[in-house]
Amino acid sequence: MIVTIVGVGLIGGSLALDLRANGFADKLIGVENNDCNKKRALALGLVDEFKKLKAAVEESDLIVLTIPVEGIVVALKNTLNYINMKQTVVDMGSTKNHIVSSVKDNINFKRYVPTHPMAGTEYSGPDAAVKNLFANKVAIICDKENCDKDALRIVEKLYKSLFMKIIYMNSAEHDVHAAYVSHISHISSFLLANTVLEKEQIDENIFNLASGGFESTVRLAKSSPKMWTDVFKQNTDNIIEVLDTYLQLLHQFKSYMVQKDFEKIYEQIEMANRIKRIIK
Amino acid sequence: MIVTIVGVGLIGGSLALDLRANGFADKLIGVENNDCNKKRALALGLVDEFKKLKAAVEESDLIVLTIPVEGIVVALKNTLNYINMKQTVVDMGSTKNHIVSSVKDNINFKRYVPTHPMAGTEYSGPDAAVKNLFANKVAIICDKENCDKDALRIVEKLYKSLFMKIIYMNSAEHDVHAAYVSHISHISSFLLANTVLEKEQIDENIFNLASGGFESTVRLAKSSPKMWTDVFKQNTDNIIEVLDTYLQLLHQFKSYMVQKDFEKIYEQIEMANRIKRIIK
Repeated sequence: MIVTIVGVGLIGGSLALDLRANGFADKLIGVENNDCNKKRALALGLVDEFKKLKAAVEESDLIVLTIPVEGIVVALKNTLNYINMKQTVVDMGSTKNHIVSSVKDNINFKRYVPTHPMAGTEYSGPDAAVKNLFANKVAIICDKENCDKDALRIVEKLYKSLFMKIIYMNSAEHDVHAAYVSHISHISSFLLANTVLEKEQIDENIFNLASGGFESTVRLAKSSPKMWTDVFKQNTDNIIEVLDTYLQLLHQFKSYMVQKDFEKIYEQIEMANRIKRIIK
Repeated sequence: MIVTIVGVGLIGGSLALDLRANGFADKLIGVENNDCNKKRALALGLVDEFKKLKAAVEESDLIVLTIPVEGIVVALKNTLNYINMKQTVVDMGSTKNHIVSSVKDNINFKRYVPTHPMAGTEYSGPDAAVKNLFANKVAIICDKENCDKDALRIVEKLYKSLFMKIIYMNSAEHDVHAAYVSHISHISSFLLANTVLEKEQIDENIFNLASGGFESTVRLAKSSPKMWTDVFKQNTDNIIEVLDTYLQLLHQFKSYMVQKDFEKIYEQIEMANRIKRIIK
């Protein structure tokens, strides 16, 4: 199978490594706007060659979009206009509803499978690509009832070849749950980094005290500004809703501190400990 | 050297494992109120025997307090009353100023070295004890000018035997910096867990989406309620100050979202990325 990967960064590059190793792809074509990334991806042997989108699409059985979600909206429209009914398009963006809505009137809409593999690191670009990034993680496939059966089957086969567990959701539900669990975690981490950088003016103190829990909590604050601004743009309402709850609980905690009501604080921490039942 | 460890949990138990392995301690005595922990610690061979505080102290060259910080205040006072001028006491609590102040008039105050090893995990109890927990981490020694030179030297030798990097601070400074970096991280994580548990009613969704960043950000939310309530009790003012900054930045972020000012959001994330210069 000939596979085109649009955006050969952390996700696209890691995907390329696995699809070559497991034999899913016979040939890998990259599409990339950024010349530096193109050079690095070729030097790392992630893809066989780079082409312009149209030329790459015309040659491919499967086109995978792994760029930030605002870029996906544009690339997806173009890709669907270039393909025929035997080709399949899949995106791996962290939001789904806006992307799906943007192409629902396209004549080739049924060839498109909206997905979100729950895999990644805080790093970005082709140098961040690693083998087995996806193994044993969850891949979400959205609105499967809208897809042509053979297109869906190819994408399921793709994720199974990466050893992912597939779950199904509709795209609006996806965005609610992603906001509730993944997107709020990033906001919590971005602002924690900014808080600590603002309050603690001495870098060395941050470095020395980082193993007191800060390091793991702030890991996500290293994530790509472009990728995450796009996500926040496309999932604004769901994110504001969960951010309101987070703010409310932080204010409540602060008022317990001000009132020195440490019984209530103990209860809050005990409640937080319930996360153990879900995450070992 | 005979070492007594008061509180044979995550920190005390891990310490016992290392001090036995590196030959620093010839004999390890445990002091523990919790009968279950006592049994587990003996079963795991963490200490040689358990004694009451007074009997243990009388037999020991070095007494290490590794219980939650409210307990340290009580145990430290008792320990200082039991020792002679050849014995040394060290505590490993996450707050320092209140503990130090509580014994500054004690006749044996100079035998006490206040410290905070920046090492730990989100787990607690003797079963959480692991080897090499402290290696290559930072140990903070506070108010060294108040300590007898030989007492200070023994505690420095202790931390060097664990391969820790020692830094010095006064205890009031310690509490400010610990609030700014470590304590706020825990609050951010506890309330993130409660937010997600409140908004996302379906455990399976949390589990499935956890690898989208939530898992690492929420790790600290599994931490001990007793330990952290004590820390919040003893470092209230510093924590409220940094919590105010965190709340202010979260509100600002929310207002950018409401106004759909995504340029400002991009800037906020770019600012957060500066944490890379400190934490690789």
